[in-house]
Amino acid sequence: MKIPKSIRNLIEAFERLPGIGPKTAQRLTFYLLHVPSEELEMLSSSVSSLKLGTKICSICRNVGEDDPCEVCTDRGRDREVIAVVESPLDVLALEKAGFKGLYHVIHGVISPLNNIGPDDLYINDLMKRLKRESAASEGTEGSAYNYLSGDVLDSAASGEIKEVILATNTNMEGESTAMYISKLISGLNGQSSAVKITRIGRGLPVGGDIVYADDITLKRALEGRVSFNL
Amino acid sequence: MKIPKSIRNLIEAFERLPGIGPKTAQRLTFYLLHVPSEELEMLSSSVSSLKLGTKICSICRNVGEDDPCEVCTDRGRDREVIAVVESPLDVLALEKAGFKGLYHVIHGVISPLNNIGPDDLYINDLMKRLKRESAASEGTEGSAYNYLSGDVLDSAASGEIKEVILATNTNMEGESTAMYISKLISGLNGQSSAVKITRIGRGLPVGGDIVYADDITLKRALEGRVSFNL
Repeated sequence: MKIPKSIRNLIEAFERLPGIGPKTAQRLTFYLLHVPSEELEMLSSSVSSLKLGTKICSICRNVGEDDPCEVCTDRGRDREVIAVVESPLDVLALEKAGFKGLYHVIHGVISPLNNIGPDDLYINDLMKRLKRESAASEGTEGSAYNYLSGDVLDSAASGEIKEVILATNTNMEGESTAMYISKLISGLNGQSSAVKITRIGRGLPVGGDIVYADDITLKRALEGRVSFNL
Repeated sequence: MKIPKSIRNLIEAFERLPGIGPKTAQRLTFYLLHVPSEELEMLSSSVSSLKLGTKICSICRNVGEDDPCEVCTDRGRDREVIAVVESPLDVLALEKAGFKGLYHVIHGVISPLNNIGPDDLYINDLMKRLKRESAASEGTEGSAYNYLSGDVLDSAASGEIKEVILATNTNMEGESTAMYISKLISGLNGQSSAVKITRIGRGLPVGGDIVYADDITLKRALEGRVSFNL
């Protein structure tokens, strides 16, 4: 028996999405056959207009409605701290956790197995941003770095950044990317005023059992112990 | 921080699909931001043209490209057996398993909790089909049932059906729907020539361990034992 072409097309399109296998793709497609046409049209137009309403911020590289984005232009946020994250989803997660600083989204991790090197990410971009900031803070070398930044970027370089939190994932690729960025920033620090580099805390998740934690997590949790004064 | 409207729209559209929660909807949406525009357009058009290329077969109610569908018009299939299934996906599964008979898709199960009664499904439709068939086989009452069938349907009523396999799912709703249909067919059988009613076999899945099987499955497996002669 042949599956109708329009059904086959949608199944194949769904299968291309991450985490959706052939069975789920089939299930979703046959579910949509039962859905009112308006809802189908809504899904279709949401997909096709996804990129139309979004821009990549030229400062932090997060995805937003405007450029520069809402976070970068918000003077009410803590402009001394930048969290370096892998993806815009991480920004949402940190926002929910109450982070009030700025972000830099590098859009991926260094992954030699997948042929992704530092140049495929917004890491150089982060370095330029930090250089601009340090130039602005010293007030002397400012002109030396002017060629790196457009008008919009310039307004963001206010020399306030005191700390970079490396908030990439805590898996192997995230760790090595954090290490790579940390080395680059140390190099920068040698030249000009120092920026503090921190790594997001690793340890037991809240609600976790010590018995069930794996060895490495427990090791990290011991290393990352903090003083406990009531 | 505000999520851009076009992103929010797509997340909400994905969340409406079955088995896709808020996190998966977010993940899919942000994945699509990285996808080339052509692929995005392909997904969008596949969704919007899903229903355009499909028809519901007026005989078996399966979804196909033509009406009547490929299976109903295929004279090479075993036209003595009809498998009654819940959805077009079940048809695909049975096709893969090598079933060579005909189908009847009732598009759901009787489910009082979800306000789905027999009249919301293609069960009456199945009864009419069986009546037409039995009328055709007797050759006398044919005219009495003519009003039930259009020209297309008439050509399918050849009075060959000898067995109805109730192949609804083996959960509670599937079982009770099978029971309901079985009673209806028994009623029909009283009036005219008998059609054999069978239920799809229930027991241990192939590769299954007796130790891990649940009580009811094991009970069904014992009831459904078959003679084993080499």
